[in-house]
Amino acid sequence: MSFKKELSRKVEEIEKKLRDFLPEEAGFQKTIFEAMNYSVLAGGKRLRPLLMEESCRLFGREGKEIGPFMAAIEMIHSSSLVHDDLPAMDADEYRRGRKTTWVVYGEDMAILAGDALMIYAFETAAKAFKETDRPDLVGTCIGILAEKTGVYGMIGGQTVDVELTGKPVSEEKLDFIYRLKTGALLEASMMIGAALGGADKNQIALMEQVASDVGLAFQIQDDILDVTGSREVLGKPVGSDEKNEKTTYVTLKGLETAGSRVEYYSRRAKDALLSLPVRNDFLNELILALITREK
Amino acid sequence: MSFKKELSRKVEEIEKKLRDFLPEEAGFQKTIFEAMNYSVLAGGKRLRPLLMEESCRLFGREGKEIGPFMAAIEMIHSSSLVHDDLPAMDADEYRRGRKTTWVVYGEDMAILAGDALMIYAFETAAKAFKETDRPDLVGTCIGILAEKTGVYGMIGGQTVDVELTGKPVSEEKLDFIYRLKTGALLEASMMIGAALGGADKNQIALMEQVASDVGLAFQIQDDILDVTGSREVLGKPVGSDEKNEKTTYVTLKGLETAGSRVEYYSRRAKDALLSLPVRNDFLNELILALITREK
Repeated sequence: MSFKKELSRKVEEIEKKLRDFLPEEAGFQKTIFEAMNYSVLAGGKRLRPLLMEESCRLFGREGKEIGPFMAAIEMIHSSSLVHDDLPAMDADEYRRGRKTTWVVYGEDMAILAGDALMIYAFETAAKAFKETDRPDLVGTCIGILAEKTGVYGMIGGQTVDVELTGKPVSEEKLDFIYRLKTGALLEASMMIGAALGGADKNQIALMEQVASDVGLAFQIQDDILDVTGSREVLGKPVGSDEKNEKTTYVTLKGLETAGSRVEYYSRRAKDALLSLPVRNDFLNELILALITREK
Repeated sequence: MSFKKELSRKVEEIEKKLRDFLPEEAGFQKTIFEAMNYSVLAGGKRLRPLLMEESCRLFGREGKEIGPFMAAIEMIHSSSLVHDDLPAMDADEYRRGRKTTWVVYGEDMAILAGDALMIYAFETAAKAFKETDRPDLVGTCIGILAEKTGVYGMIGGQTVDVELTGKPVSEEKLDFIYRLKTGALLEASMMIGAALGGADKNQIALMEQVASDVGLAFQIQDDILDVTGSREVLGKPVGSDEKNEKTTYVTLKGLETAGSRVEYYSRRAKDALLSLPVRNDFLNELILALITREK
């Protein structure tokens, strides 16, 4: 099967699994359930659960606890988008061609829907305790999920990003923002997948580094595409970063240096994966596709 | 020692413990750390960690895992206040005599600070895995924490409350809002405390019912005080519920019925506690004080 075909088959399966974990739209809280499901089912690449599943597969052990964590990481990702789009944040009215959650459900309900998804992620992840004989390992994974989501992870990156918008940003800070805002959830995905798949401590640390590098390469590639891409391919206006007064790798270091950084980080990630005694060709192709994408 | 003296000693100890779990205000994310700590250290009765600790003590076992959970439940409570105060929600500029988080740090940073506290609560609770030989029990407690915080708990209550403001509310719905919005975190506190203290399944369920009744009695008492209290004692304008077009137990059923409801729920909670083979006099007094309070 071609990579593209396998990818879309896998993403379809994840969509199905994800639906199983979403709340039923019934009861007095019906509106918030609808807002949560609207936000999660808005589409997207389902990259985080996919990376988690493939990292688990890499280490071989069939982790039955992985389902709840795959749903949880996608809920957290969705919750961050719901809050990012709010009028007090990026004030975005559309995402992936659909109205954003606050436009449809109101600002108050969107704040609560983001909160609800964040908490429901942990409620869902905690379901793994019910079907495991490794509660200590599930506990470790919950710890990773929280750490990579919170102030030392994604949310930490968002806050620095918010604070620095329109201000001069050093390379060190930009690196920090990218590693946390984009990288941290990828790290959680690959670490949790690896842990449930049977990886040892050193291997989990290696996966963390791989994910971090992939996140950076991905984000810098994003900056490059904002300048070189075409509107049709990107699905958003070219040059939107410049318009939004965002410092990017390209505005800071130029296109050429940005390009060689992408190459450096992706090579390092690839080499690290090759150093493992195990192999998952699909995962390798997925990472390559992420970094060399054109949109 | 008098109850009041013992209470203030215990609250002081909780304040100290809580500080140990708060993040250090250093690094690129300094602002968000400050906003989190500002929100948590704004004072308050520390009722939830106190109920948790005393419920643990009731069942006798010294649960060393309880510290992280006490901090976690207070962080979740704080996070809900930070988001409640936002302009798109209640638009409150003051809380307990201090400016609210969004007034001091901006709306965007307050959204992120609420998010950060919510996640940091789970990051903190997950620390209990590192010092336990009962990872399955800690997992159960994390599950309780998430369920009682989320759409089937506090956040669920908030959403129905937000949706119904200014609209006619049935007694059934008001009951639902009170049980979830106020009751659910009290339930989590007493259930987690009891579980870590060594309570069995039935006893944990009994504690859930006790907390639910206490929450209802507490909230209805709040409605009564809004009508009968004096501004000096309450610290907020008398009649603010009426001004805000809020349906309360008093507007719905009258003062007398509201009063007898408080009595009914508090008696049921007391009787349930008395039916246990264990006893914690301080906890009994605390619950009594909560319900019969004058502010």
